[in-house]
Formats: sequence, C-alpha cells, structure tokens
Amino acid sequence: MTSTPTLPLGFRWSSATAGLKASGKPDVALAVADQPATAAAMFTSNQVVAAPVTVGRRHLAATGGKVSAVIVNAGNANCATGDPGIDAAHRTCVAVADAIGCVFDEIIPSSTGIIGVPLPVEKLIAAIPAAKAALGNTLRDAEAFATAILTTDTKLKTARASFTVEGKQVNLFGCAKGAGMIGPQLATTPPQAPHATMLSYIFTDLAACSEHLQAMLVIAVEPSFNSISIDGDMSTNDTVLLLASGASGVSATLEAAALFQTALNGLCASLAYQIIDDGEGVTHVVTLAITGTPTDADAKAIAKTIATSPLCKTAWSSADPNWGRLLAAAGRAGVAFDPTQVVVRVAGLPVFTYGVRDIAFDEAATHAAMSARDYTIAIDFGAGEGRSTFITCDLTHEYVSINADYST
Amino acid sequence: MTSTPTLPLGFRWSSATAGLKASGKPDVALAVADQPATAAAMFTSNQVVAAPVTVGRRHLAATGGKVSAVIVNAGNANCATGDPGIDAAHRTCVAVADAIGCVFDEIIPSSTGIIGVPLPVEKLIAAIPAAKAALGNTLRDAEAFATAILTTDTKLKTARASFTVEGKQVNLFGCAKGAGMIGPQLATTPPQAPHATMLSYIFTDLAACSEHLQAMLVIAVEPSFNSISIDGDMSTNDTVLLLASGASGVSATLEAAALFQTALNGLCASLAYQIIDDGEGVTHVVTLAITGTPTDADAKAIAKTIATSPLCKTAWSSADPNWGRLLAAAGRAGVAFDPTQVVVRVAGLPVFTYGVRDIAFDEAATHAAMSARDYTIAIDFGAGEGRSTFITCDLTHEYVSINADYST
Repeated sequence: MTSTPTLPLGFRWSSATAGLKASGKPDVALAVADQPATAAAMFTSNQVVAAPVTVGRRHLAATGGKVSAVIVNAGNANCATGDPGIDAAHRTCVAVADAIGCVFDEIIPSSTGIIGVPLPVEKLIAAIPAAKAALGNTLRDAEAFATAILTTDTKLKTARASFTVEGKQVNLFGCAKGAGMIGPQLATTPPQAPHATMLSYIFTDLAACSEHLQAMLVIAVEPSFNSISIDGDMSTNDTVLLLASGASGVSATLEAAALFQTALNGLCASLAYQIIDDGEGVTHVVTLAITGTPTDADAKAIAKTIATSPLCKTAWSSADPNWGRLLAAAGRAGVAFDPTQVVVRVAGLPVFTYGVRDIAFDEAATHAAMSARDYTIAIDFGAGEGRSTFITCDLTHEYVSINADYST
Repeated sequence: MTSTPTLPLGFRWSSATAGLKASGKPDVALAVADQPATAAAMFTSNQVVAAPVTVGRRHLAATGGKVSAVIVNAGNANCATGDPGIDAAHRTCVAVADAIGCVFDEIIPSSTGIIGVPLPVEKLIAAIPAAKAALGNTLRDAEAFATAILTTDTKLKTARASFTVEGKQVNLFGCAKGAGMIGPQLATTPPQAPHATMLSYIFTDLAACSEHLQAMLVIAVEPSFNSISIDGDMSTNDTVLLLASGASGVSATLEAAALFQTALNGLCASLAYQIIDDGEGVTHVVTLAITGTPTDADAKAIAKTIATSPLCKTAWSSADPNWGRLLAAAGRAGVAFDPTQVVVRVAGLPVFTYGVRDIAFDEAATHAAMSARDYTIAIDFGAGEGRSTFITCDLTHEYVSINADYST
C-alpha cells in the first residue's frame, strides 16, 4: 500500500455509443483481458434476475471462472424480458467473442437501466466494433469504461490501490455505478430467478485462482456493498465482478493474499461509499454504527430497518435528532432488546441514554452536527458483541422528483 | 345490518383541551362506560413500547378485561420516557378513576404524538374535570372524542354499524387516528418492550365476555389494521381497543356473534381504509391484491415489500405502470417464485404476463387508470392458493415535507 497506484496490467478498456441512453452519451463499456483472466463474481439475491445475470452465471460455471471480456450496456436492464432477453444477452456475447477472438462463454454481459422493456440488441451489437477499436490501457480508457456504465449517477465512481511484494507491484482498479434502487444483498449462490442496478467491476493483475478470488471477494463485499442502502430497493441486476489477469507476476501467496485482501476491502469500501454519496437526492450521508446486539446479523437487521425507515430518513433531511423514530424503527426490526439499555449518540453527542433523553442532550448542538454532509449515528443496545456499520442517506424531495419522473 | 346504525348504549364520550397540541385544539379524549365494560385489545408488536401501552396491558391483565374508562391524549406519545413515563400514565389513570368513581386499573390510558419527550402530566390531569363535565351520549359527543385523538390527520375517522337479533338492535361505533408512522402489526402477546401512533377505539353494546371479544377482534384486525401501510413505520403506541357494554341486552349467541363478527370486520376495514385515504401526502390509494403464493403469509410478505418500496411508491405518485419496480420489490420479499408464472394487472388492465410485458399492454390507458384516486394492482404468482389484500398509498413530496418539518 506504499506504492503509487497504477492501472493493473493485462487489461484494456473502452466505451462506445449505441444509442440506448436518451441523453446520447456513451452507453456501452467494454473491458478485455489480454489473456483470459480468472474471475470471481457475486450477483443480486433478488428472486427476479435480469437476463445478463442468468447468462453471466452460466458462463462462469461453464468456464470455471475464466473471462476474456466484459460488455456492459446502460439504458436498458434487459430484465423481465423473457426468453428474448436471454437470447439478446447471448447474441451480445457471441458478437464480442467474434470481435476479440475467443469462445462466447468467456464473455460476461451486464445491463442496467429500465426494467421490463426489450433490449434493442441490434443497436448494442452494432456498437461493438467501435468499442473494440477504442480499447486502450490508459487511465483515460479505464475512466471511459467507468463513465459509460453510469445511469442516474452524477459522479464517476472509481478507486485504485496497489501494493508491493518482493519488489513487484500489484495493482487494483475498480469502478461502480448506482444511485437509486440501491439496497444490495449480493450472494454467491443463485436465487430462484433474477434483475439489477448496482454494478461494480474490479480489475487486478494479481495471479490467483477463481476459488481464491471468490473467497476474498465475499469477505470484501459483506461490509461494503452489502452494508449500504439508498432506498432499500434491491435491484434485479446487482453485480460485482472481480477479474485477475496475473500480469503482475505476483501469485496469491499468504503474504500477497493478505495484502490483496486489505487492498480489496479498502477499494470496495471506497466504491460503496461513493455510491451512497452520489445517491439520488442525497444531502446527508449517515453512517449507522450499531453495537451491543447478540449477533452481527441482529445489528445489521436493525441498521437496515433504520436505513429504510421513511420517518428516520426524512428527519435526517432536516437535521432533526429524532431519536423516537430511531427507536421505533429499531423496535420493528425483529430483534429483541431492552430499551432501558439503549444509548444513542449522534456525531458523538449524547442524545438518548438508558431509556430516556440524555440529561446532557443539547438540541441546538445536535442539530448543528447533523447539518454536516456526513456524520455517524451510534446506537448501542448493551446486550452483546454484535455490530454492524451501515452507510445510508436521507430521503429528500429530490429523490421523489427523480423517481416519480423516471418514466416507463 | 338492515337496521339504522345508532350509537351503542352504555357509553358516554367527551373531549377537553390540556394544551398538549401546539395548535391549541382539543387534545384529551375521554370515554366512560356506565357500568364496567368487557374489553379486548391488541397492541403494537414493536420492541419499543410507550408507557400507556405497558400500563394498559397491566390493567387489562389485572382486571381480566374490565374497563370503566379510556383516557387518550394527543400531542405527546409518552414513549421512551422511562420510569417517569410509567408514573405519568399511572397518575393519569388514578385521576380519572377518582373523577368517575372506580378503581384505577379499570382505566386504559393512550397517548399519541412526539416520542421521547416527557409527558406534561400535570396539564393532562388538570383537564380531566372539564372532560368529565362534558361527557354525553350523542353523536356530537362521540365525534368530539374521535376528533381529540387526531394528530396529523386531516379528516375525522369514524364508522358505525348495527344489526338486529330477535328484535333487539346491537350497535357499534368505532373511531381511529393515524396518518403517518403507519405500518401496524398488532398482536395479543406483549413484545419485549413498547411505543405507538395508530389508535382505534371500538364501542359496542353487545354482551360478550372478554375472551370471546378478543377472539373476534383478532379475526377482524388481521385483514384490516394489520394489512395497511403508509410508510411501513410501525409505531410504538399502536392500539386497538374494543369495549362491550352489554346494554343492548343481546348476548353473543352463535347467531349474534356471527352478525357481530361481520359488523366488526366491516367497521375495522372502513377505519383502516380511512387511515390510508388520509395518509400524509397521499394522492393515490393502492390496493395490492396478491394471489397465487404458497401461503397467505407469503402473499402478505410480498404485499408489504411492495407497499414499502420507495421506487414503487414514487412511481404510483406519477401514475407510472412500472412493473419492473413491482417485480424487483416482490423479488426481495424472501418468497421464492418463478417470474415466468407472474401476471400483473393494473386496474384490470393487462401489464405483465408470464415473464414479459403483456402484448396487449396499453401505456396510455394504464396511465389514465392510475390517475384515479383509488385503484387495484393485482399480481398473481401462479404457485398456490395464498392471498393477501393490502391497502397502501403513494409517496409524495408532501409526505417528505410533513415529516422533514415535524420537529423534535
């Protein structure tokens, strides 16, 4: 982590414009590995899953986690589109495979955008030659990839990390998109059926097998992508894909794996934070630090209930230290607790202690602290060692405007 | 049900002004039974429970379901107020008991309003003599009671029903309050700890024992109060109280109980509907008719997830037939299903059929149907006999304004 991050070796990136976004901006992102990369992936645990997730799962299973390219389109989620949707994802992979010279199941497709509307696959396929021609390995190319996957996002979301083992540098580059329909719960096992909106692609030049990458990805995703919520609406297309080229010449030995895990954890945390920070209509980023529950799962259940409570989220929009709403939400999370053991602190200030308003509660000071863009609400339940740190945001007029105006 | 509803005999109602509401409107409601009534009650299943709920439970247990009076205050929920909150609720009951001449545990207290702020109990007690002096048995008196319990409600919520058995008329009168923090899940068994915002009081002159009333109340509450949501935020004070004076002279024989159950079901359904219809910022009342799941609980789980999805609720605010959001929400409800078996109809119009957009989908017609104040979204999962009919509403700028501006 002391080395200067550079881009991972062994990959090229590009974008193109297929005309799927109403804005006319680039809407196709292509990443190609010079040699087939090893891969790990986690997908939405929604019962309704988009066609590209279904196809991506099949391809990873068929190849044992070998990926030559990723093709992403924004503007249409290719979800709830039936068998024609599966065909469209498949044809897209075949077209990319033909263009770069590999077998079709080494291609992972992703889509994000409107759900339930047929994907204009001809437009997407027609853009592939331009995307191939634009491939490059500079930061500008990687950022072109990261830009084309955006939908309602207002900011580019990227993160880089590097570390050195025995004089050789290992690099990571990750990007993500997502500003609404953000309530991910990524899993390795497929659900009954699929859709999606949070997408993240992470590239590294570490050499590691697919199984090892998968184990490390699961560890990194739980406290990052799986511990954030904008609106609690889990998407049908949520995907995190990790590709390793091996081009650094560094293998995942015990030491390298430990350094990589740390770098990956930090990179995922950064991308997850960026998603909340750019959430639709967000004016406050709120970190919920839940402690003192019997288990970590209990703490997360409480955090998720508070993070999706309209009353808590609207209170945050006006910097209102409304502990009653926090307690009421916690109390319906399905976790037993004793309110007389609960302590609530907002930005470090005492608010509610052992069942009553704290004697030192200072409304003006607390309101002022909550006027900050970013602060922590710490709630301790005094009943165990369980904990969860969960990042969420307020609910504003702007969120309603964005989502009431978004049209089918 | 062919008789004209009149008020149940054996009760008197009134209101008074204690100065707990910032508006200065009546904020104390008193109902007194001429002779101790038999009672049934259901309370919030929140882990955090308001002091009056704790005290009310104790009193019902101590008396075996005998109630002489109900005292309700609006403007302060007396919740998260610790032992002083319990003392305040107890002192209120003692003061009412002294005023009307009964023992204190025949009094049921209720509170609604801000959570976490000490109840100004002296003000409440000082208003009891005026409330007692105003007691009467006219519709105007009953409506004074029903008005004083309101907080952010914009409309009075009452319902009446009557039926005749062997020439004798049995009457029911019910009222309710609640416009936000509405996601009730009432239960008969106490949770670990308590708070509340949906309140309903139902009076009848049927003669029935407490156990029988309780059984009938549970049946009536599940499809009514327990199948509605405005914001999914279950309150800490939710209470439904049913009091039976016996003054009609009609006992709960098989025939009378059957007629009473039917009348009670209809009355609870009416009050539950009125709550959603008057929900904070509501412009559309949406009935979710979920069918074809393995169990009724599965159907309700899906209905609740859709009813609390910010993306679904904002789409409804703009009459957007966004089936993708419906499917994505259903898919995260924890119920396994096959999307290719799903059929969605909006106001009877075909939208999504067996995994794809219906070929007869007419966007303009569906949008027009969703512009109505009130319509039904029917979703069939084709996998069983489970069903749930759940009433909810859209999420609007006005909801955000009301709850961002509501101050601690």
